[in-house]
Amino acid sequence: MAENKASITHQLQSVKRKCGKSYSQIAKETGLTNVYVAQLLRRQAQLKAETAPKLRAALPDLPEDLIAEMMTPPLRSYDPQLIQDPTIYRLNEAVMHFGESIKEIINEEYGDGIMSAIDFYCSVDKVKGVDGKDRVVLTFDGKYLPHTEQKSEHMVSRLNLG
Amino acid sequence: MAENKASITHQLQSVKRKCGKSYSQIAKETGLTNVYVAQLLRRQAQLKAETAPKLRAALPDLPEDLIAEMMTPPLRSYDPQLIQDPTIYRLNEAVMHFGESIKEIINEEYGDGIMSAIDFYCSVDKVKGVDGKDRVVLTFDGKYLPHTEQKSEHMVSRLNLG
Amino acid sequence: MAENKASITHQLQSVKRKCGKSYSQIAKETGLTNVYVAQLLRRQAQLKAETAPKLRAALPDLPEDLIAEMMTPPLRSYDPQLIQDPTIYRLNEAVMHFGESIKEIINEEYGDGIMSAIDFYCSVDKVKGVDGKDRVVLTFDGKYLPHTEQKSEHMVSRLNLG
Amino acid sequence: MAENKASITHQLQSVKRKCGKSYSQIAKETGLTNVYVAQLLRRQAQLKAETAPKLRAALPDLPEDLIAEMMTPPLRSYDPQLIQDPTIYRLNEAVMHFGESIKEIINEEYGDGIMSAIDFYCSVDKVKGVDGKDRVVLTFDGKYLPHTEQKSEHMVSRLNLG
Amino acid sequence: MAENKASITHQLQSVKRKCGKSYSQIAKETGLTNVYVAQLLRRQAQLKAETAPKLRAALPDLPEDLIAEMMTPPLRSYDPQLIQDPTIYRLNEAVMHFGESIKEIINEEYGDGIMSAIDFYCSVDKVKGVDGKDRVVLTFDGKYLPHTEQKSEHMVSRLNLG
Amino acid sequence: MAENKASITHQLQSVKRKCGKSYSQIAKETGLTNVYVAQLLRRQAQLKAETAPKLRAALPDLPEDLIAEMMTPPLRSYDPQLIQDPTIYRLNEAVMHFGESIKEIINEEYGDGIMSAIDFYCSVDKVKGVDGKDRVVLTFDGKYLPHTEQKSEHMVSRLNLG
Amino acid sequence: MAENKASITHQLQSVKRKCGKSYSQIAKETGLTNVYVAQLLRRQAQLKAETAPKLRAALPDLPEDLIAEMMTPPLRSYDPQLIQDPTIYRLNEAVMHFGESIKEIINEEYGDGIMSAIDFYCSVDKVKGVDGKDRVVLTFDGKYLPHTEQKSEHMVSRLNLG
Amino acid sequence: MAENKASITHQLQSVKRKCGKSYSQIAKETGLTNVYVAQLLRRQAQLKAETAPKLRAALPDLPEDLIAEMMTPPLRSYDPQLIQDPTIYRLNEAVMHFGESIKEIINEEYGDGIMSAIDFYCSVDKVKGVDGKDRVVLTFDGKYLPHTEQKSEHMVSRLNLG
Amino acid sequence: MAENKASITHQLQSVKRKCGKSYSQIAKETGLTNVYVAQLLRRQAQLKAETAPKLRAALPDLPEDLIAEMMTPPLRSYDPQLIQDPTIYRLNEAVMHFGESIKEIINEEYGDGIMSAIDFYCSVDKVKGVDGKDRVVLTFDGKYLPHTEQKSEHMVSRLNLG
Amino acid sequence: MAENKASITHQLQSVKRKCGKSYSQIAKETGLTNVYVAQLLRRQAQLKAETAPKLRAALPDLPEDLIAEMMTPPLRSYDPQLIQDPTIYRLNEAVMHFGESIKEIINEEYGDGIMSAIDFYCSVDKVKGVDGKDRVVLTFDGKYLPHTEQKSEHMVSRLNLG
Repeated sequence: MAENKASITHQLQSVKRKCGKSYSQIAKETGLTNVYVAQLLRRQAQLKAETAPKLRAALPDLPEDLIAEMMTPPLRSYDPQLIQDPTIYRLNEAVMHFGESIKEIINEEYGDGIMSAIDFYCSVDKVKGVDGKDRVVLTFDGKYLPHTEQKSEHMVSRLNLG
Repeated sequence: MAENKASITHQLQSVKRKCGKSYSQIAKETGLTNVYVAQLLRRQAQLKAETAPKLRAALPDLPEDLIAEMMTPPLRSYDPQLIQDPTIYRLNEAVMHFGESIKEIINEEYGDGIMSAIDFYCSVDKVKGVDGKDRVVLTFDGKYLPHTEQKSEHMVSRLNLG
Repeated sequence: MAENKASITHQLQSVKRKCGKSYSQIAKETGLTNVYVAQLLRRQAQLKAETAPKLRAALPDLPEDLIAEMMTPPLRSYDPQLIQDPTIYRLNEAVMHFGESIKEIINEEYGDGIMSAIDFYCSVDKVKGVDGKDRVVLTFDGKYLPHTEQKSEHMVSRLNLG
Repeated sequence: MAENKASITHQLQSVKRKCGKSYSQIAKETGLTNVYVAQLLRRQAQLKAETAPKLRAALPDLPEDLIAEMMTPPLRSYDPQLIQDPTIYRLNEAVMHFGESIKEIINEEYGDGIMSAIDFYCSVDKVKGVDGKDRVVLTFDGKYLPHTEQKSEHMVSRLNLG
Repeated sequence: MAENKASITHQLQSVKRKCGKSYSQIAKETGLTNVYVAQLLRRQAQLKAETAPKLRAALPDLPEDLIAEMMTPPLRSYDPQLIQDPTIYRLNEAVMHFGESIKEIINEEYGDGIMSAIDFYCSVDKVKGVDGKDRVVLTFDGKYLPHTEQKSEHMVSRLNLG
Repeated sequence: MAENKASITHQLQSVKRKCGKSYSQIAKETGLTNVYVAQLLRRQAQLKAETAPKLRAALPDLPEDLIAEMMTPPLRSYDPQLIQDPTIYRLNEAVMHFGESIKEIINEEYGDGIMSAIDFYCSVDKVKGVDGKDRVVLTFDGKYLPHTEQKSEHMVSRLNLG
Repeated sequence: MAENKASITHQLQSVKRKCGKSYSQIAKETGLTNVYVAQLLRRQAQLKAETAPKLRAALPDLPEDLIAEMMTPPLRSYDPQLIQDPTIYRLNEAVMHFGESIKEIINEEYGDGIMSAIDFYCSVDKVKGVDGKDRVVLTFDGKYLPHTEQKSEHMVSRLNLG
Repeated sequence: MAENKASITHQLQSVKRKCGKSYSQIAKETGLTNVYVAQLLRRQAQLKAETAPKLRAALPDLPEDLIAEMMTPPLRSYDPQLIQDPTIYRLNEAVMHFGESIKEIINEEYGDGIMSAIDFYCSVDKVKGVDGKDRVVLTFDGKYLPHTEQKSEHMVSRLNLG
Repeated sequence: MAENKASITHQLQSVKRKCGKSYSQIAKETGLTNVYVAQLLRRQAQLKAETAPKLRAALPDLPEDLIAEMMTPPLRSYDPQLIQDPTIYRLNEAVMHFGESIKEIINEEYGDGIMSAIDFYCSVDKVKGVDGKDRVVLTFDGKYLPHTEQKSEHMVSRLNLG
Repeated sequence: MAENKASITHQLQSVKRKCGKSYSQIAKETGLTNVYVAQLLRRQAQLKAETAPKLRAALPDLPEDLIAEMMTPPLRSYDPQLIQDPTIYRLNEAVMHFGESIKEIINEEYGDGIMSAIDFYCSVDKVKGVDGKDRVVLTFDGKYLPHTEQKSEHMVSRLNLG
């Protein structure tokens, strides 16, 4: 399956390269975030039925069998050695060094819960800093999910069991 | 912090041992699942304000400063060597050996999403098998969370950025 | 052997895809749990002789040589990187975070023993929560196995040895 | 808890050292296997009520509070660095190098199942080889457990659910 | 040093708890991001001389010796087991699953370079989603750093060497 | 070399499957233990010249070039992921949980030494337990090797060196 | 992608071998450091447009499609087993054993910051030691990057958010 | 136990330091190899009864309770981080890089067997190289152990079993 | 021993802090490289007899017993988690990403050998880049060591053996 | 490159097998140690120009292109799973268990330095023990390398820098 995924990703990237559009351009044409477009073209997200026509319009060379494949739920994964790449390492470094602070602020501002990585948006934006130099802005925007208190009367499966 | 957590857990377990009630008994008295009661007494879950009086009633020796501590969001964690224990290993074995099958059935029945481990209930129940022998029933009951399609118009933080 | 297993699984999945039935449908037709059907079609469980006709009926395109292969004991295994998938990670997270609590409840309710992962049933069920939203219910149902006290007189192999 | 276990084990070993009996002697006096006696004195097994008087007789200096502690279910564990010890490494080497062969013979002789490590006996015996030299005989004697076929009608917890 | 850091962090957190202000409140009073305030109070960042008076004003109980300590460069670090916490795991999951896409977008938009984790800002903001529910917005804002082309004439240290 | 070994093992297993005999049957015909026969057919042991005719008699389809290959010393190895298989994991669990006890009994009964894994026998036997149920008996029988005291006068290589 | 990179590196090395020039010779002809030339020919750095003609002149057999490939940003990576090579291990040993000292000197001489590995030069030079013997001089020359103080007013992305 | 071992080693080293003799001097006085003396003083080997008087003579300050302790079988172990030390790393490097060659030469010269690490001598000697410079000679001298052919008639434990 | 080393390093650092000199200042006063001074004060290098008076002059508060300790050979080591620190990570990143190139240049310029990490110098220098900004220059200067061809007639220990 | 090395090693081993000589025989004919010959035929050492004719004489079927390949510096490496082989594990065990003792003896006899693994000889010799049984003697003979004191005036590269 991993090999199959790699081969499909390879084909999707070829279609994009020939077309010549950037992820951000395709994002604008399809109404998706640029990171999500990149995920679609690496089989890390599912193409929804209503979005398929927009992607087909943006990438006219995309064959129908690849579109069908993109509409099935993927097995999300990554190569652990990606962390060697300086860009990805520094993101990981930020998360691990700032993680405990981020958790504590979420607890203070919302309560005992987390930022969802499933009901989640991600984008990369280009801005100028106060010194006029280019900066990369990466935004993670996830739904706040409170840890449930596990009350027996709310556990539907348990009511049936007894 | 890890040491602090261990010390608080130690005190909570002493209170329970002296009281002599099982997790399942406390669960019945407080209206919580038995696993959740055990999590509370190991500082793996937050005691909610409305439940505090019930727990105080079930465990009258619980001192107020421990109750106050239990009402703050915990740092959830575990000792990686727990997996050496035969009971815990076999749970892990089941998850890893059955995991891909479980994922595929979720995809077939619901679509591209997951079972939440946050909006989540867990209980252990004792039943008799068809051969009349004791069986352990472990139930995981989590909300289905679909992976969001990341549309720019729905990403509130992004609208503000531009 | 790993490659052989992957290739057989690939063929079994193709048969199922062409047939168009879900794991739960095949489960109903064969009288097995849905998770067990998925395990059979990934060569993680042995097809029993009495069940073979039912599976053949449910999946008429299943060739005889694959059925013969499915009737031999498999080498159970998994790709360690499966834990990257969000669905499987959250199951693992639940087991590791709740594991010690589950063990203690088993000890309280039954004594010094474990839940078997061999004399074991597993199913995925779809229910509505009290808020009317979809929930996933995963059930692990295993025989309780007490740790034996190792008395010399009960150790048959030792009696023979002396 | 790990520290507590280490401290109790330390006390148990002191009692044994002062008493001067070997594990095999205590085994004979209590009717247990020698390995099981060693496990009891390292808190890797539970002392059963009916055996407590025999152990008390064999080790008269054993204090009552330690006996009470020994009668609770232990958290089974080991120090991963034990594998550095030449004796333990060679056992591990044998298991890993011979493991696949052992599995295949179990499959041939019994069917699709395993040797239980829970309903399990273990002993160390001293014999003379055909060359008259000392040999160590380690016996693992475990119940054969067949992997269950997961039939819905046999899954009691599932019947309740629906 | 690790123990020393833990002890100082413990003291800093006590001062904050007694004071009763949240990280976001202290952030407003000092003109820093909320995440950076949390990093300062966990000794993961250096307190700058010009900011010390503002922090002293926001946390009047902060003793001078702790302030002096906070003004030295810290050894940045983290406990690898933090990744067990569900909040931190999900951040890590997002980085590893989205990392390659983020890298490719940076390459398309800027060229061959990275987002700095040193000339870097981080904040947590609370917003309402389009469904009116709470969402967590985490912003990483780092300077774009192009990989230098290593021309000998620009390598000052090399000119000296010859 | 690993690939070569896998391919030879594959051929050896095919010869055995076609022949239809079990490891225990071949063991009886050749006078070897059943585990050793399985090791020979997985290239984990060397076929001795005097045994070759017996194996040829037991497996008449074994081609001469494979027999020649089986008579060279193998590179002993195993796939670390074998430990995922439930049968092999439980053997490993027993060794790690009982290992320190086994070592201490060897020390008490023999002195400071180990059980050899080289001058070593291993077999799997089928017995009935006291409850009449099938049990698996795994026997490890190794020569006791005392750690030598390193006296200079006994170190022949050292005498030559000076 | 990893395989693709390996194959391109293989072709680049063939071109160099046939040409017969050393990295240091190509470095002189192109005005780059010798290490950077080696990185270019292993696809660990991007060939800049203005340098392409110089490299084409130094390596006339370099085909145009490889030059085009070399001008795209690479995925930087390495085989973790490289650390087995004695040369590379000793570099790693020096970094890990001297690392804390190097960090402290940077802190003393510059303040709270790091040596960039992105705005970075590296070269290998051959010198004679005071004893007249050959020595290898490896120079790492990176820009000093101070850790930014995260002031809200300087975080452009945050101003937009509110 | 690890702590106990460390504390005993610490005392043994103090006795040696005060005495002022080197390992090689004690080796000459006791008739042991220098490496073995060092192992004795780090509790990595057992002091034999007949050698105790010689060691007592060589190290007169050695207290009797330490001598008694040294005469019990030790738990052999090492700190895995020792491999960071350059001396120990280079030994490990030699073993891993030359290991396969050493194995093949043993197979050619002796047959299918190994060099024992139990019936084993080890010494460090100082010699002058052909260039007159100091060289370290490390000698490993172990008994050749052939892998046994596992014949049922030679497996004494098996004969008893049947 | 690790704890002892940590405690001595702690004392040495206190002496330096009270004295108020930087590593580079002490380096100038003692004629050593700045990195080597830092290594001495962290017990990662041996203080030589002829240098002791210079260090005593530079750090007058250094007590004689610490100087005596510094003159014994240290056990070189490091905390593996140091790699979390951004400064040390980036050095490691450079070594791993550039390592194969560095090795190949050494092979081209000198032959089949390595840069010694034992006959080795290391210093940190502050320079201005061509853009006038601060840069860190780290120099590794090690003796070139050719891999010896192992001729029997040059192996003195072997001549003695035969 | 790893695959290329494996393929060359495979060819070299075939040439040796056809020729029928052992490593020790080739060693005698070429004047090299037996281990070094084995390293040459596994591409773990460089064939020197003056030795090439002797090797060609000893192995007349060695093709010229392989000889040319053998004369280039190899990338030294090993398969980490080699440690599973009993012969290689026991060497590693000896190094790790005796390592600290060996280091301390080197320090006592020579000072603060190491045994080089580069200016290094290794051989395997067959001897008879005092009991007349076969023993394997493995000799490591490496140059003593003292850790340099890093004096600025001796650091040639540094003088140039300033």
